Amino acid sequence: MPTTREKSLHRTVYVGTFIHCETLQKLDICEDGAIGVDEHGKIVFVERNMENVGSAIVAHGWEDARQPDTHIHASQYPNAGIFGQSTLLEWLNTYTFPLESSLADINKARAVYSRCISRTLSNGTTTAAYYATKHVDSTNLLADICLDAGQRAFVGRCCMDNLSPDYYKDDSAETAIADTRSTIDHIKSIDSAYELITPIITPRFAPSCTSPLLHALGQLHKSTNVPMQTHISENLGEVQLVRRLFPESTSYAQVYDTHGLLTPKMILAHAIHISASERDLIRERDAKISHCPASNSALTSGGAKVRWLLDSGITVGLGTDVSGGYSPSMLEAVRQASLVSRHVAMLDGDAAKLSIEEVLYLGTRGGAKVVGLENKIGGFEVGMEWDAQLIGLTLVPEAETEQHGGALSHASFKLSSNEGPVDIFGWESWDERVAKWVYNGDDRNTLSVWVKGRLVHQRS
Amino acid sequence: MPTTREKSLHRTVYVGTFIHCETLQKLDICEDGAIGVDEHGKIVFVERNMENVGSAIVAHGWEDARQPDTHIHASQYPNAGIFGQSTLLEWLNTYTFPLESSLADINKARAVYSRCISRTLSNGTTTAAYYATKHVDSTNLLADICLDAGQRAFVGRCCMDNLSPDYYKDDSAETAIADTRSTIDHIKSIDSAYELITPIITPRFAPSCTSPLLHALGQLHKSTNVPMQTHISENLGEVQLVRRLFPESTSYAQVYDTHGLLTPKMILAHAIHISASERDLIRERDAKISHCPASNSALTSGGAKVRWLLDSGITVGLGTDVSGGYSPSMLEAVRQASLVSRHVAMLDGDAAKLSIEEVLYLGTRGGAKVVGLENKIGGFEVGMEWDAQLIGLTLVPEAETEQHGGALSHASFKLSSNEGPVDIFGWESWDERVAKWVYNGDDRNTLSVWVKGRLVHQRS
Repeated sequence: MPTTREKSLHRTVYVGTFIHCETLQKLDICEDGAIGVDEHGKIVFVERNMENVGSAIVAHGWEDARQPDTHIHASQYPNAGIFGQSTLLEWLNTYTFPLESSLADINKARAVYSRCISRTLSNGTTTAAYYATKHVDSTNLLADICLDAGQRAFVGRCCMDNLSPDYYKDDSAETAIADTRSTIDHIKSIDSAYELITPIITPRFAPSCTSPLLHALGQLHKSTNVPMQTHISENLGEVQLVRRLFPESTSYAQVYDTHGLLTPKMILAHAIHISASERDLIRERDAKISHCPASNSALTSGGAKVRWLLDSGITVGLGTDVSGGYSPSMLEAVRQASLVSRHVAMLDGDAAKLSIEEVLYLGTRGGAKVVGLENKIGGFEVGMEWDAQLIGLTLVPEAETEQHGGALSHASFKLSSNEGPVDIFGWESWDERVAKWVYNGDDRNTLSVWVKGRLVHQRS
Repeated sequence: MPTTREKSLHRTVYVGTFIHCETLQKLDICEDGAIGVDEHGKIVFVERNMENVGSAIVAHGWEDARQPDTHIHASQYPNAGIFGQSTLLEWLNTYTFPLESSLADINKARAVYSRCISRTLSNGTTTAAYYATKHVDSTNLLADICLDAGQRAFVGRCCMDNLSPDYYKDDSAETAIADTRSTIDHIKSIDSAYELITPIITPRFAPSCTSPLLHALGQLHKSTNVPMQTHISENLGEVQLVRRLFPESTSYAQVYDTHGLLTPKMILAHAIHISASERDLIRERDAKISHCPASNSALTSGGAKVRWLLDSGITVGLGTDVSGGYSPSMLEAVRQASLVSRHVAMLDGDAAKLSIEEVLYLGTRGGAKVVGLENKIGGFEVGMEWDAQLIGLTLVPEAETEQHGGALSHASFKLSSNEGPVDIFGWESWDERVAKWVYNGDDRNTLSVWVKGRLVHQRS
């Protein structure tokens, strides 16, 4: 049967209202625009003033440049929402390792990964940096599924040869490296130029890896230039554990640095409890940070100081961190980034607060930079690829504004079946519409999703 | 045309899985139950062991005793999600007073209130304590709409004769009292026994009211026994303002107390920054607290110490606080109560963390106590009224678990049109299903809603 990658594209002109982030502080809202996309999915022109064209087509919606999830464990998707009262280390042992290890079963892995990718796509995630499990076959399957679904993805096999349960652990640094090479080879075999799917070297986190394994992964990165992802400083107990396990290092960040892992192609998730000198080291190495606000609240990990990271010049994007994070939706990550920044502001002062523009930037351009694709995705510009979602909002029906001679009929209270959660009364500005979507929107508002010019999701 | 209140009820037996909160810490999950409801909407029997009956009917869902919103400004619904970077006092002047004052226009009020009630009902809110505006006609219309829709409601005209903009202010304490009496009389005329709609005396908050008005409202409460609602200690600037405005009072709580407003029939929203002695005073008077976590995060108001309130014996329920809160969904309030308690725990220690059971209790039994209806609603017990919602979750289709001979067809990635956001793989326990619903559920999972035995919402 034909798969997505075999379909050819036509040159297309998209018309309507286009919104992307110009800078960290500024949304660019183009009300009557037209964007031309060529047969390779690349933007070839952007016209800004096509009066009366756009508004007819997407009357209460817009197209939005979207949306890299810079940290998501596809293998943990079935546990979304299940974490009880736990914090990180207990959560790993109670909920996470048992589920991940069960994905040795390729059929279970297929069910979980298919559903996870359906959900991320339907929520508008055009690109994702996925953690799979330690299993080669299941990890390769995740890469296959992303390619078939047409989602841009970084797919990583989890390396973990230390402090992990016997039933779910790499046998040695050598087997971990060999297995990681197998997944790199597989991805090269299905997408030789890494156009859609890229392998990503994935030491789970320092406590799960011996020093020899970390060194070997640093070497592998150096020899292949394949990007990397891991966790850092999510939880205070974890930070203490790293101090005990790597007594020769002065900090958690330095552990990664001394093993050749702190480079511009490293995505560090969380970075909640890092010191000022760790921040400086990360910035110096130009490593990237994936902020995962929903997860950090759910697991009581702490509130990451995003303003403090941004002010130092570090590149920050957003991640859902399923299933530490309960939701596969990047819009929920955007919303939680706003809310968590307000909790940080309650302690550190108003400057910590992130605006709508800023959280959207982190979820689009910021994430694109984190995964090293800032020249390809994250905005509507000539030469970029057509990664976008079409957003539709609900206009409250006029009928409800009319007098029905006293009491209203009960019918007035019925919402139509597939109605999205965002109500527009008609008087809202574009900025207000965007704010309403950020705070109340969900996958019902994501009408279509394109990756590299290809329609990969459409709400029926 | 016939309105809801004129429809007669039949005796009905509901079968399936029933979940309600037994205590603050304990969910009662009754898998194969049957509940009989009489023609007055009252529960007349509860059977717990009707094997093979329930599971056939609601295979992956349950019925849940629901769900009083103890604090919601219906008049602010169009601003849900619109608050920018503001905090309370600036937010009132920038966003709130202009919108509320515009509901002098009865047609605009009708549009706003109809939609707001449609949304709260479709999200499973069976009872709500509403703030309307200062306008008598619009407030009365809100009461009419709730009655027609079949939603149990407390409807309050906002009293505000001080420190409010000239364009939106009561002329005097006397007119404020007269206008409040008008809305009480109107509600008595449409629902003489307050079976569904109850008036509620509503001083906006201490800074908006002169001392003579507060005294007069205390008198009105004493003479009518009509319940009351207001705000307390939401924001530090507000607390300072109250100190300046009422220099003779030793605390914000004492202001209400000395005016005869701190009684068992008072609902206080927020209570974030209260002192230990205020807490003791509130408990002594048995006044109730509505915790509004989404709002408190959004407006950077602070994190209410719910455990500390509960430990003192104060009754706490949950409110959405639209539009300080961005969402009309009580499930979002439940979810945010969990997340905000984790931010409080980051500072105050693990004991502050609220469990799934506890946040559900606050959203059901807790809220019922806050509005004084603990003998009528909040649980499935003989003698209580049938206020419930039917919850359905999505079972991930088996098809996706099958091998398709290598690559998956693109069709595998399609979600069906009206699919809810909660995925059940089939192996989850009931507790895990409930957790998944709490963290990812929305109005798509609310299939039916009943109030007092009457079906008031059904997902088409």
